Amino acid sequence: MNYKMMGRFVAQIVTIEAVFMLPAMLISGCYGEWTAVAGFAWTLLIMLAVSGALFALCRRTDTIFGAREGLVCVGIGWMVLSALGCLPFVFSNSIPRYIDAFFEIVSGFTTTGSSVLGDVEALPKGMLYWRSFSHWLGGMGVLVFLLALAPTGGQGFTMHLLRAESPGPDVGKLVPKMRKTASILYLIYVGITVLNVIFLLLGDMHWLEALCTAFGTVGTGGYGVRNDSMVSYSPYIQNVTTVFMLLCGINFSCYYLLLLGNFRSIFKDEELRTYLLLVAGAIVLITLDVRDLYDSLADTLRHSAFTVSTIITTTGYGTTDFDLWPTFSKGILMLLMVVGACAGSTGGGFKIARMLLVVKSLGRNIRQLLSPRRVQVIRNNGKAVSEQVLDNTNAYLAAYVVIIIASFLVVSLDNQSVETTFTAVLACFNNIGPGFDAVGPTCNFSGLSDLSKLVLSLDMLAGRLEIFPILALFSRNTWLRK
Amino acid sequence: MNYKMMGRFVAQIVTIEAVFMLPAMLISGCYGEWTAVAGFAWTLLIMLAVSGALFALCRRTDTIFGAREGLVCVGIGWMVLSALGCLPFVFSNSIPRYIDAFFEIVSGFTTTGSSVLGDVEALPKGMLYWRSFSHWLGGMGVLVFLLALAPTGGQGFTMHLLRAESPGPDVGKLVPKMRKTASILYLIYVGITVLNVIFLLLGDMHWLEALCTAFGTVGTGGYGVRNDSMVSYSPYIQNVTTVFMLLCGINFSCYYLLLLGNFRSIFKDEELRTYLLLVAGAIVLITLDVRDLYDSLADTLRHSAFTVSTIITTTGYGTTDFDLWPTFSKGILMLLMVVGACAGSTGGGFKIARMLLVVKSLGRNIRQLLSPRRVQVIRNNGKAVSEQVLDNTNAYLAAYVVIIIASFLVVSLDNQSVETTFTAVLACFNNIGPGFDAVGPTCNFSGLSDLSKLVLSLDMLAGRLEIFPILALFSRNTWLRK
Repeated sequence: MNYKMMGRFVAQIVTIEAVFMLPAMLISGCYGEWTAVAGFAWTLLIMLAVSGALFALCRRTDTIFGAREGLVCVGIGWMVLSALGCLPFVFSNSIPRYIDAFFEIVSGFTTTGSSVLGDVEALPKGMLYWRSFSHWLGGMGVLVFLLALAPTGGQGFTMHLLRAESPGPDVGKLVPKMRKTASILYLIYVGITVLNVIFLLLGDMHWLEALCTAFGTVGTGGYGVRNDSMVSYSPYIQNVTTVFMLLCGINFSCYYLLLLGNFRSIFKDEELRTYLLLVAGAIVLITLDVRDLYDSLADTLRHSAFTVSTIITTTGYGTTDFDLWPTFSKGILMLLMVVGACAGSTGGGFKIARMLLVVKSLGRNIRQLLSPRRVQVIRNNGKAVSEQVLDNTNAYLAAYVVIIIASFLVVSLDNQSVETTFTAVLACFNNIGPGFDAVGPTCNFSGLSDLSKLVLSLDMLAGRLEIFPILALFSRNTWLRK
Repeated sequence: MNYKMMGRFVAQIVTIEAVFMLPAMLISGCYGEWTAVAGFAWTLLIMLAVSGALFALCRRTDTIFGAREGLVCVGIGWMVLSALGCLPFVFSNSIPRYIDAFFEIVSGFTTTGSSVLGDVEALPKGMLYWRSFSHWLGGMGVLVFLLALAPTGGQGFTMHLLRAESPGPDVGKLVPKMRKTASILYLIYVGITVLNVIFLLLGDMHWLEALCTAFGTVGTGGYGVRNDSMVSYSPYIQNVTTVFMLLCGINFSCYYLLLLGNFRSIFKDEELRTYLLLVAGAIVLITLDVRDLYDSLADTLRHSAFTVSTIITTTGYGTTDFDLWPTFSKGILMLLMVVGACAGSTGGGFKIARMLLVVKSLGRNIRQLLSPRRVQVIRNNGKAVSEQVLDNTNAYLAAYVVIIIASFLVVSLDNQSVETTFTAVLACFNNIGPGFDAVGPTCNFSGLSDLSKLVLSLDMLAGRLEIFPILALFSRNTWLRK
């Protein structure tokens, strides 16, 4: 294992995090929140010490960097990011207990949006900004950012890292150079964020609130700045958010194709079509199911479109208490929770591209049972899918099921209802935010035990990093052999 | 498609069913239940007409019989078996509505044990016998019985049928001849049943009750003859049932090895060891979790051992209302519900052998991610597992998840609680019987809509026949090409 290179790498991540913490400190300064400023300052000092020590210790390195290093780097990188990123909350007494603060920032970086806070509005502005900004940073991936920026080292380095951090069954290179790909993705990401802020400002939102809301929307995170999430916002703001959530659930390479004017490839993209079909179908079914709960058809449509978007993109904002909806609507929402958004988007979940592969491979298996002697190839967007990718996808499904069952058992020790326990795990693992019942949209995760919070934090990381980097950390094989 | 051979085959199944219905009619006669006798008589007439017509129509056939025919035959065979087998309930007015009676007998044949009846004791004795006997017939498989008995026709016939009906990822031939294998399995099955009846009679049980209870136990079905399932029986009877349930959750080929005196192979069997470990672990954990609910440690142990056995073997009897247990214990039970018993046993569920394969193949995938260039082979009991079996197992997992999600959505239209809806699907699909909440051990399935009952009936069949025979019935490919 190339420990020195990993050390340098973690040091770089910590440096970037420190730089991004400065605006939050500045905002706290402007608002005269001196406890918060002190909290940020202490954290920055610790970060400086950590990254300085790592840089000093890991100076000379060789450049061999394999798949194993890539997985471990990503896993450890995100752990360190969270372990340090939650310190301002603790030092400023905004969230006094470390495990709560850790849960909160993991939920931020992984764009989950599950919170332990009952009263968000009591937080200092700088802390609110940092909390929402963690969504933005985690949404596209902090390592992707590093790749876009830093002079990268060594052969295989960028590819293995990008593969470990990127969501989806297969990494799509937009351009031959990985670093260029990362830059393009980030430019698109910034562009969408700016657009979202502008639209929110046009709805007469305060600039800081607009920034935070846009971070939560574009990163598909879901941390709001109000205690009622988005209930008290105007229909205009809610609709703008619906649209931008949906936009950020789409594979970002589609936007690159859009910029190139390659409309045909976009329209023919199977994943995008399935995504739009799922969204439209879910909105129609839920609108029919909940039509008696709201005054007008317009209201019903607005709430069902918002909720479908917030769940399928795994954002987690709420305009209405969907825990009160009938079981059929809740069933559809649970299905969307599991499926999640498109690969290569900022959304979480199992990913639609994977779902398509699983369904296709199931279909092939049935056909093969019926006619054992025919050879069958699975195609995606017209191209044959390699058996390796299929194999990985099936392993992903297995890991997905195993992790959900194991987490369910641990969290069930809290003796909450089955619905609470199950949806708490689903909501965290798929990076959504709220579940049903005691972790529903009007509640929060503060009632759970420390053990549950720790397990759910790991679930969030496993969900965001697509399981294997976190599993690799706990695998004997990672550490045993050279 | 070889329709004529399939027709003959269905005719044979109906004939066997008719023969097995005679004892039930006899019992009703002895007890002077003349409405029940009339019900059986009318059913027998219809069966005679159906099988006669089929035999007449499908006289001359060629003997080509492939995998497709095998799948379809098993699917249709079980459908017909259920469609006719429920008629006595309807004709005798024991269960007046056809869909209810269909649900009840499907639940019987698939050894599920979910009932729509609130008052079982009101049923005529003959009906009670028939209801319990359906478990026994379905437990080992009616087609296996046919194979053991009938002069089989044609090349591939027995193998394709046995493969389609037998539970587990791989069909183990005990002896080179399939027909001999089927006979040995049935002899063991009868032997265990006789032993169970004797032990129950030693506990001063009425002979009819002992027969019915043994059918439900050995078939791992769970239909009882009392309204409180097994609550009011003596601890002796309960413990005898615990032991026999556990025995019938074991792969029956282990008993064949036992008869041959091959103890070493038995002890080294990975699936058996995992099964025993799961049972022991679950009993310990649940005993610790529910120790405050019962008077003595002996009572706690008895109830937890009974409940663990009834759930992991997917039987479904109850000695206590485990719906009142803490969420952790319920979580363990839900896990056991999903895992199920050993392959080649009479139990249902995903099967432990499959679970082992999924976990091993996941482990391999992680190792391969870490060291992409090494070739890894998966072993079961020391033998390499073919990629085809692994592929099928993963497809099975996918089908399993897809069916659970789809069924959940349909049943959720009834607007029962999420817990009720989810565990109703789990309990039926895994052939267990009771779920939690409104379908818990003290409740029944009569509150569900007809649509839900139909879907759950299909789930039970899909669960018992291991999905693919039922999926094949609904696949376009089955019917389109020659």
